[in-house]
Amino acid sequence: MNAPDKLQALLSLTREPFPASTKVYVDGALPGVKVPMREIALTNGERVTVYDTSGPYTDPTAEIDVRKGLAPVRAGWIEARGDTETYVGRQRAALDDGVKNEDLHGDRINALRAEAAGLQRTPRRAKAGQNVSQMHYARQGIVTPEMEYIAIRENGKREWMREYLGDAEREARLKGNAMGARIPEIITPEFVRDEVARGRAVIPANINHPEVEPMIIGRNFLVKINANIGNSAVTSSIEEEVEKLVWSMRWGGDTVMDLSTGRNIHTTRDWIIRNSPVPIGTVPIYQALEKVGGVAEDLTWNIFRDTLIEQAEQGVDYFTIHAGVRLPFIHLTTKRRTGIVSRGGSILAKWMITHHKENFLYTHFDEICEIMKAYDVTFSLGDGLRPGSSADANDEAQFAELRTLGELTKTAWKHDVQTMIEGPGHVPMHLIQANMDEQIKHCDEAPFYTLGPLTIDIAPGYDHIASAIGAAMIGWMGTAMLCYVTPKEHLGLPDRDDVKQGIIAYKIAAHAANNAKGHPGSRARDDAMSKARFEFRWRDQFALGLDPETAESYHDETLPKDSSKEAHFCSMCGPKFCSMKITQDVRDYADKLGVDEQAALAQGMAEKSAEFKAVGGELYIPIHKA
Amino acid sequence: MNAPDKLQALLSLTREPFPASTKVYVDGALPGVKVPMREIALTNGERVTVYDTSGPYTDPTAEIDVRKGLAPVRAGWIEARGDTETYVGRQRAALDDGVKNEDLHGDRINALRAEAAGLQRTPRRAKAGQNVSQMHYARQGIVTPEMEYIAIRENGKREWMREYLGDAEREARLKGNAMGARIPEIITPEFVRDEVARGRAVIPANINHPEVEPMIIGRNFLVKINANIGNSAVTSSIEEEVEKLVWSMRWGGDTVMDLSTGRNIHTTRDWIIRNSPVPIGTVPIYQALEKVGGVAEDLTWNIFRDTLIEQAEQGVDYFTIHAGVRLPFIHLTTKRRTGIVSRGGSILAKWMITHHKENFLYTHFDEICEIMKAYDVTFSLGDGLRPGSSADANDEAQFAELRTLGELTKTAWKHDVQTMIEGPGHVPMHLIQANMDEQIKHCDEAPFYTLGPLTIDIAPGYDHIASAIGAAMIGWMGTAMLCYVTPKEHLGLPDRDDVKQGIIAYKIAAHAANNAKGHPGSRARDDAMSKARFEFRWRDQFALGLDPETAESYHDETLPKDSSKEAHFCSMCGPKFCSMKITQDVRDYADKLGVDEQAALAQGMAEKSAEFKAVGGELYIPIHKA
Repeated sequence: MNAPDKLQALLSLTREPFPASTKVYVDGALPGVKVPMREIALTNGERVTVYDTSGPYTDPTAEIDVRKGLAPVRAGWIEARGDTETYVGRQRAALDDGVKNEDLHGDRINALRAEAAGLQRTPRRAKAGQNVSQMHYARQGIVTPEMEYIAIRENGKREWMREYLGDAEREARLKGNAMGARIPEIITPEFVRDEVARGRAVIPANINHPEVEPMIIGRNFLVKINANIGNSAVTSSIEEEVEKLVWSMRWGGDTVMDLSTGRNIHTTRDWIIRNSPVPIGTVPIYQALEKVGGVAEDLTWNIFRDTLIEQAEQGVDYFTIHAGVRLPFIHLTTKRRTGIVSRGGSILAKWMITHHKENFLYTHFDEICEIMKAYDVTFSLGDGLRPGSSADANDEAQFAELRTLGELTKTAWKHDVQTMIEGPGHVPMHLIQANMDEQIKHCDEAPFYTLGPLTIDIAPGYDHIASAIGAAMIGWMGTAMLCYVTPKEHLGLPDRDDVKQGIIAYKIAAHAANNAKGHPGSRARDDAMSKARFEFRWRDQFALGLDPETAESYHDETLPKDSSKEAHFCSMCGPKFCSMKITQDVRDYADKLGVDEQAALAQGMAEKSAEFKAVGGELYIPIHKA
Repeated sequence: MNAPDKLQALLSLTREPFPASTKVYVDGALPGVKVPMREIALTNGERVTVYDTSGPYTDPTAEIDVRKGLAPVRAGWIEARGDTETYVGRQRAALDDGVKNEDLHGDRINALRAEAAGLQRTPRRAKAGQNVSQMHYARQGIVTPEMEYIAIRENGKREWMREYLGDAEREARLKGNAMGARIPEIITPEFVRDEVARGRAVIPANINHPEVEPMIIGRNFLVKINANIGNSAVTSSIEEEVEKLVWSMRWGGDTVMDLSTGRNIHTTRDWIIRNSPVPIGTVPIYQALEKVGGVAEDLTWNIFRDTLIEQAEQGVDYFTIHAGVRLPFIHLTTKRRTGIVSRGGSILAKWMITHHKENFLYTHFDEICEIMKAYDVTFSLGDGLRPGSSADANDEAQFAELRTLGELTKTAWKHDVQTMIEGPGHVPMHLIQANMDEQIKHCDEAPFYTLGPLTIDIAPGYDHIASAIGAAMIGWMGTAMLCYVTPKEHLGLPDRDDVKQGIIAYKIAAHAANNAKGHPGSRARDDAMSKARFEFRWRDQFALGLDPETAESYHDETLPKDSSKEAHFCSMCGPKFCSMKITQDVRDYADKLGVDEQAALAQGMAEKSAEFKAVGGELYIPIHKA
C-alpha cells in the first residue's frame, strides 16, 4: 500500500485518542501478555486508568493498514500449544458472497476480493482428536495466556483507586448487592481458569482470530455490551466497513456482531475480522439463507454446516445458533400478540412447518459441537422465541425454549465447548427477575446474553432508553453481556450517531450494574468524577465521562469562555450563588471548631457565629477566578 | 388584543394536535366537571384514549389569548364552597421583580407589568377560621368536583381496552407487582377522597389558580412527572415564557416548577400561572434570596413569609420548603464527597452557620402551615441534603433529614395541609429500595417526589438516561412523582430540545413503572402498539408512540416512500424476508389443523407438510402491497 493510499485509509478511520488520555500497556508473566488500558491524566496530577475496548486504533504509535489487518497478538500462544495445524481449507465459492455464479457480478466480486487479498490467512484447525477450546484447556488445569491477559484486564490498575475507596463508613454503606454473583477482590488467572472450566464464563477467541485482545463474559466479571453492525447495501470500501467496527469499539463495544446480509458478506467479513481486536459474532443461518436465495424451506444441514466451516475458518468468535426452536414449541406462538420476532427463529419455524421435521440444528447439535471445538468458536444459543412485545413476555414458548437451551448447554459442555445463552427482548420490569432465575436454574449459570429488555412498547425513537432500564436491572441480576438497542429500533437502520447513542446508553446500563453488584473498583471512576465536580475541575469531568466531546460541547453552549473551564461555579446556579462553594464554607467552618464546639454544633446549641465570619463567608465568586 | 397581535401570539405557541388525535371531553356528574382526554383514531377503526397533559393548547377550537389567560375552569367550584373571600391583597413592591427601587429599570418593569395587566386577578383566601385545602374537605367527607374530575381522568376511557386486556392467560402472566400499592380496578371519586384524607395523595390546586385541570399525586395513582422551567436571562416576551410551559406540557409534564431567579420573576410568574392548566410549583426561598441581594445570611422570616403570601396570592400550587435541613445535621455533611448540592439546602446551611440558629423554616413551620391552608398550597418538603454523588447516597445526613420530614408531615397533617416529600438525587441501583422503605416508614406514605435517582456519576451529557433507570425503579417501588433530569444536567442550561429529551425519558420511566405496578389499563397502549407492529400499521405505530414526529422521521430516513407506510415489512429485515409474515404463515397453518393434528404438532410428530403448502408459505412480499 503506497503512502497516499495509506494516508487516505488512516484519515477515514477515527483514531484520535480521548482527551487527556494515553494508551498504557501492562505486562503479564506469560510471554507476549501485554494488556492495553486507557490512562486519563487529571489536572490535579492524578492518573485514572479505565478499561479500554478501542484497540490499537487509539494508540497513535500503532501502524495500522486495513489492507493488511492488525498484528496477530495471539498467534504465538496458539502456535505454542502445538495442538493445531494449518490446512488448505474449504474451497471458496461465488455463493459465499451471495452471487449464483462467477460470471454474474464477477468483476465487482473480484475487485472486492482483490481488496481483501492481503487479508487472506491460511486457516488453522485442531489436529485430529484435539479440542482447542479455552474451556478444554481450563478443565485440563491449564492457565492460558488469554486467561492471564483477562485477569490483568479485569482488575485494571487499582493503585489510583485508593484515593477513592479508602473510607470505611462509605465502603460499608455502598457495599454492593451481588445478587448471587461471587466476585473476588482481585481477579487471578486461576480464578479465570476456574470460571471458564465451570462454564460460568466464556472467552470468545477463535484460533483463526489471533488479532483479538482477549476478554471474558461471565456474571463474576465486568458486565459487557455488544454492538451490531451490518454491511452497506452497496459495499463501497474496506475503510468504510472497518470504520463501523472502529466506531463501535471506540464508544465501548466489548464485542461486535456482524449481521450482514445480501451480497459481499464473505469478503466484508474478512475485512472486519482481520481488523478487529474485539470478538466478532455472527448468525450463520443468515448467510446460509442467502445461499438458498432466501427460501427458508430450501435450507439443508449440509449448506448450513458448510457455512459454519466457512465462517470458523475466517475467525468468527461466536455463533448464534437457534437450536432451541423446536417443532413442538411452534404452536405455542400462535396465540401470541407478536408471534416470532427473531429472524433466525422464524427462518427455522418456516423450515420446520414446511417439512414437518424437527429443527436440524437440534438434531445435528453434536456435529455442530465437533466443529466448535476444532476452532474454539463459542456458542451463543439463540432465543428464537424471545418476546417481541410485553404481551408475550415470559410465556410458555419463551420458557420452553429456554429449558431446551439448558439441555443443549449440558451437551455443549460435554464437548468442552464454551456456551452462552441469549435472552430477553420485550419484558416489563416486574417480569425481569424471573428471566434471570429461570436461566440460572436451567442453564446452570452459563453466561446470559440479553437484548435489552425493553420495559415498554410505546417508545419508538427512544428504545435505547426504554431498554437501558431493563438492561441495567438484568445486568445487576446477573446477565453477563447486554446487546445494545439503538434509537432506530423498530423503525429503521441505525446510522453512525444512532450506533453511538445505543452504545453509550448500554455503557450506562452496564456501569450501573457493576456498581450495584459491587464490582471491585467500578465505583472509583464515579468517585473521581464527583470529586472533580466538587472541585470544579471541568476538564477532568469531561475526560472522566463516557463521552467527553458531548459533555464539553454541552458545557460550552452555556459558558463558552475558556476561562469558565476553571471557573468555580456552573451555569446552573451561576457565579453569584454556588451550593458547592457554601459547602466548602461549611467545611472550613467545622474544621475551625474544637471538639467541644463540634459537639455543640452537633447538638445545634447556640454559639458565637463570629468564628464563621472569621473564616469568611463570601458568597460572590469572581467570574474569572482561576 | 387586536387580530395581528393575537395571530402572532398564537403562532409562537405550539398548538398543533398530535397526529390522528382529537381532544375529547368526558362529563362528570358534578356541575362543570368536563375532563379532557386525547383520542387517537387508528387506521383499523379503533379509537384509543390516552391521558392528556397538554391542556387547551392542543384543542384547535379553544380560543387562547396569553394576555388574558386560560378559562378559570375551577372558579365556580371554589366560589360555590363559600369558604373563601376576595381581598385587596399584598401591596406589590419593586423588589418582587428583583429591583431595589421603582426608579431603577422602572421603565422596563412597567412595560413588563403592562404586558401582564390583563392577567391580574383579585386574590382570594380562606375566610377567617376556614381551611380550604382539598385534604380538609376530604377529611370532612366532602367529595369535591376536583376529586370527581381526577377519578375520571385517572380511569381514562376503558372501553377500547377490552380488545387488549381480555385474555385470561395473558392477564395472569402479566399481573403487575404493586410493591405494596393498593390500586383499585376503577378509581372512584370516593377513593380519591379517601386517599387525600389519608394523606397518601395530594391534589396541588391553589384557590388562586382556578385555571388548573385537577390532577393527583399518590402511589395508588398513575406515576406523574415534573419538568422545570426558568425565566430567560432577559425576558423577551410573554409568548416566549408561556411557550416553555406549553412545550413541557405537550410532551407530558404533569406539573411544572418555575425555578426563575434574578429579575422579573414576579411578573413572569403571573404570565405562567394564568396560562397554565397544570399545577405550578416554586422554591420560594429563591425569590426571597433575590430580595436580599443574594446574601443568604440577610434572609429573615418576615421576608420569607411575605414571599409565601406573594406567591400564594398569585396561585402557586406547591412550595418546596427546606424545613428539614436542621442545624444539628450540618456537620454530617462535612465528610461528604460532594457536600450540600441542593441550592435551597445550602442557602439555609449558610444562614444557620452564620447566625448559629436553627433553620427558621423549621422553627416557623406552624405559621407556614397557616398560610398553606388559607390558599390550599401543597407542601413539597425539600430534600436539602440529598446526595450529589453515589458516594454520598443513603448517608446519615440524608436520612436524618428524611426522618425530620416525617415529623413535619405529621405536623402539616394536623393542619390538614397536603404534603409530599422530596427525595433522591444520586443513588446506585442497589440502594434505591432503602430510600423508598425509609420514606414510607417515616413519612407514613405521604407521596414521594424524587429527582431521578441518577444511578451512576460518569454520564455527563446523558444523565437523563442514567437517571431514567433509577426513576423507573423507584417509580415502581412507590414514588408518586418523578422530577425529570435533562441531558444538560451538571453541564449547562437545557434548551428546548433538552427539555423534550428529559420529559420523554421520564414518560418512559413513569410508564414502565405503571406497567410493572399493574396499573389497570396502563398496559393496553403497549398492546395496541404491538398489534399495530404485527399488522404493519406504521401510521398507528407513530400515533401511539410517545413522540410521533421523531418515530416517523426515523422511519422515513430508511424508507421514505409513502407507500412504505403501508408496506408489510420493515427496514430491519426488508421485503425479502419478514419474521412477522412467517408468524402469520405459522398461524394460518395451525388454524387449518384439526384437534388431532394440533396434538400431533404439539408432540412434534411427523405429518404431511402438504397442508401447509396449501395455505401458501410465500416468503416474498410485494414491496407496494397495500
